[in-house]
Amino acid sequence: MSTHHALQTSPMPTLLDALRELLGERLSTSRTECEQHGRGESYHQTLPPDAVCYAESTAEVATIVKLCAAQRVPIIAFGAGTSLEGHVGAAIGGVCIDLSRMQRIIDVRPDDLDVTVEAGVTRMQLNAELRTTGLFFPVDPGGESTLGGMAATRASGTNAVRYGTMRENVLNLTVVLADGQVIKTGGRARKSAAGYDLTRLFVGSEGTLGIITEVTLRLYGIPETTCVAVCTFPTIASAVSSVVSIIQYGIPASRVELLDARTVQAVNRFSQMRLTETPTLFFEFAGSPASVAEQVELTQEIVESNGALGFQTAADADARSALWRARHNVHYAMQSMRPNARIWSTDVCVPISALTQCIAETAEDVAKVSFFVGVVGHVGDGNFHLGLVVDPDNEAEMAEAEALNERVVERAIALDGTCTGEHGIGSGKIKYMALEHGAAVGVMRLIKQALDPLGLMNPGKILPEA
Amino acid sequence: MSTHHALQTSPMPTLLDALRELLGERLSTSRTECEQHGRGESYHQTLPPDAVCYAESTAEVATIVKLCAAQRVPIIAFGAGTSLEGHVGAAIGGVCIDLSRMQRIIDVRPDDLDVTVEAGVTRMQLNAELRTTGLFFPVDPGGESTLGGMAATRASGTNAVRYGTMRENVLNLTVVLADGQVIKTGGRARKSAAGYDLTRLFVGSEGTLGIITEVTLRLYGIPETTCVAVCTFPTIASAVSSVVSIIQYGIPASRVELLDARTVQAVNRFSQMRLTETPTLFFEFAGSPASVAEQVELTQEIVESNGALGFQTAADADARSALWRARHNVHYAMQSMRPNARIWSTDVCVPISALTQCIAETAEDVAKVSFFVGVVGHVGDGNFHLGLVVDPDNEAEMAEAEALNERVVERAIALDGTCTGEHGIGSGKIKYMALEHGAAVGVMRLIKQALDPLGLMNPGKILPEA
Repeated sequence: MSTHHALQTSPMPTLLDALRELLGERLSTSRTECEQHGRGESYHQTLPPDAVCYAESTAEVATIVKLCAAQRVPIIAFGAGTSLEGHVGAAIGGVCIDLSRMQRIIDVRPDDLDVTVEAGVTRMQLNAELRTTGLFFPVDPGGESTLGGMAATRASGTNAVRYGTMRENVLNLTVVLADGQVIKTGGRARKSAAGYDLTRLFVGSEGTLGIITEVTLRLYGIPETTCVAVCTFPTIASAVSSVVSIIQYGIPASRVELLDARTVQAVNRFSQMRLTETPTLFFEFAGSPASVAEQVELTQEIVESNGALGFQTAADADARSALWRARHNVHYAMQSMRPNARIWSTDVCVPISALTQCIAETAEDVAKVSFFVGVVGHVGDGNFHLGLVVDPDNEAEMAEAEALNERVVERAIALDGTCTGEHGIGSGKIKYMALEHGAAVGVMRLIKQALDPLGLMNPGKILPEA
Repeated sequence: MSTHHALQTSPMPTLLDALRELLGERLSTSRTECEQHGRGESYHQTLPPDAVCYAESTAEVATIVKLCAAQRVPIIAFGAGTSLEGHVGAAIGGVCIDLSRMQRIIDVRPDDLDVTVEAGVTRMQLNAELRTTGLFFPVDPGGESTLGGMAATRASGTNAVRYGTMRENVLNLTVVLADGQVIKTGGRARKSAAGYDLTRLFVGSEGTLGIITEVTLRLYGIPETTCVAVCTFPTIASAVSSVVSIIQYGIPASRVELLDARTVQAVNRFSQMRLTETPTLFFEFAGSPASVAEQVELTQEIVESNGALGFQTAADADARSALWRARHNVHYAMQSMRPNARIWSTDVCVPISALTQCIAETAEDVAKVSFFVGVVGHVGDGNFHLGLVVDPDNEAEMAEAEALNERVVERAIALDGTCTGEHGIGSGKIKYMALEHGAAVGVMRLIKQALDPLGLMNPGKILPEA
């Protein structure tokens, strides 16, 4: 039991007894497990909870929440631990509810192009399950995230330019509220005008308003034809300008990914690829054969008029999956550039017309720092990431990283963009909430107080102190 | 001044003095104007406000709200008065803020495919303004609605099957809160994971949480080629089954509209058309010439295998706009079937696999009533409407209408659908909120209390009494 948790030190023993009675072996207070549950995949300090509960049903989550609430003990939901902004740290201690054992695929409805899953199902597990139906779920953040966690953080990924993010792809959620009540936020109709949009309120609320235990998602038919293209450029600016033209032209590419030269180098090394080490775009085009051919042709014209050095397509499934596997492993590829370092992964998103300026100015900042930084991005959305490969114990480096992050975030907000396109606020970006949202932060705080009056749901996340 | 408004009878004179000082001639208490502002386009009783303020800026709206709040006087926002569920009725009196003079198009940004407008700009005005840019805004409810009203009611229309509803197409809102504070709910980035999704919370909140004064919207390129098709069927079930197959097949039709035989009859008469008077689908296909040809061919195959009687395409602009004008005028066409009657317009939305059953069973109900009922629908979304042509002074007819509405709504909810796909709750569908949302209504009520503690924003809408 950690000792810095004055708030709940005294009631904890009774609570733990009650939780043990409910969960038996599925309650753990082991130091290792608590530490594993107190960190994500980025640079943030590990903040272990006091106990971890492995829940197996919505009813069980509701009971755990009621027991904790009765003792005023904080509650933190945990999926796969792949978050990047300190979302799962137990800022003031408390009980972690691990949902990863809630892995049931409840109902696949191919005729309605939707599916209901428990929160602990991962996106890869779901797509494996769907293989025989000809359908797939497109949202693909890099890690092997759970769908509950993806809903809670409004995740997106490489397919968002075509299919949208979790915001567009969640139809309904089952949520356990701060008082243990269970609600459903929507239905399965494609659209509804019946009252406040609670689904979108809980999507992206990062466990601060309630705990998502089931998710109903939209599915899509696997396209008839898919083709990838790898396109190299002399400068990062010429790559980004190509993307801006492609989006403005309305070419419905399903993926448009940027990697800077250094990231390509890291990918080559980690994934045994032989890509030219220069700013590069990975594209995917999908649809009917005629539509794919048309998209490829138009894209090639645009990139060539922007000075592309090369444009190579590949339609076979092995080449395609090798390319996207390499892209999804960028985080780990950067990590491998410097053993024992951590990746400070930050992301911003700006209107597409501001993307070239934003990335070019950021590249100048990046050139000045003392450690490896990779620039990658879902640039079709105006979204890009920096991976800062830092030693968390090196104070000077961390200060440099902090300053770089701040410059990038402030630049994006000044360009009418956002401090995070897809990683979320967690604890890492709380300091930018007021700059981005102004007085609207007050509205968010009112909602938080209304739904979680005791402040027990994932405290210390999203909202700055009043 | 109406006399049934005990709540604010005494402070009203002082408030009116203050409002007159602010607005001069732009404050009206004339009976005619108050009555015009107390009703939409459906069957609901006229509930006039005590005064109408014609606001010209966000700052002015904020001042009006502050003055009203200080005197505890209700505030109702008004756009074009095209709502269908009694949204603008002054249930307990109060001040109406008419936003229709806020008609500035603030900024068109073709490079970012977005635009910011004042709340009183209508969709037709916006599209006229955009004509030279090659862009358009797709969401198209039937009436000449304002974009602020469309955001407030989460409107959709014929294009939603391809482009989504207001939910998917609003990037940012300027909102005057219940205490007169002004906030922005988002930015212009295509996606963001920065905090609670206030944009989606205010979209569809029907003026009960705040007043929308500016809207930033997504725009789309006008497709290179557009083609319409009119397809006739022996039965409504065969028409609907065709649509279900088309959606499940993934054909990206941009419009899929159903009209039953009686509605076609009304359209022929009102819009001087010569359509065959049998269940009919209107389609629109858009994209590159190759893609449109492919869509038309696949659709024709599907409808023919479902027993279509005829399938006629038209690519020229005049034929296309005549068809969609006729579709958009269906409400008025039904109205013309019986002078002095009102249209009780109701809509529901169900998962696509339940659509054939839902419409077939509803058609049996419709066949039993004593008055004209038209069935139309944005069936690609699983959404359909009934237009009940009733005499509001005929009690027996109104009771019959009420019973029909109830059967349709309860059927849709039982099929995992919603009591309204696009018309909203207003006052007309409050009684179905608990059936559809269960305990989630309590969460909506907590949000309402948090953001509007005095209960002054459009009282008597969306939320049932506790």
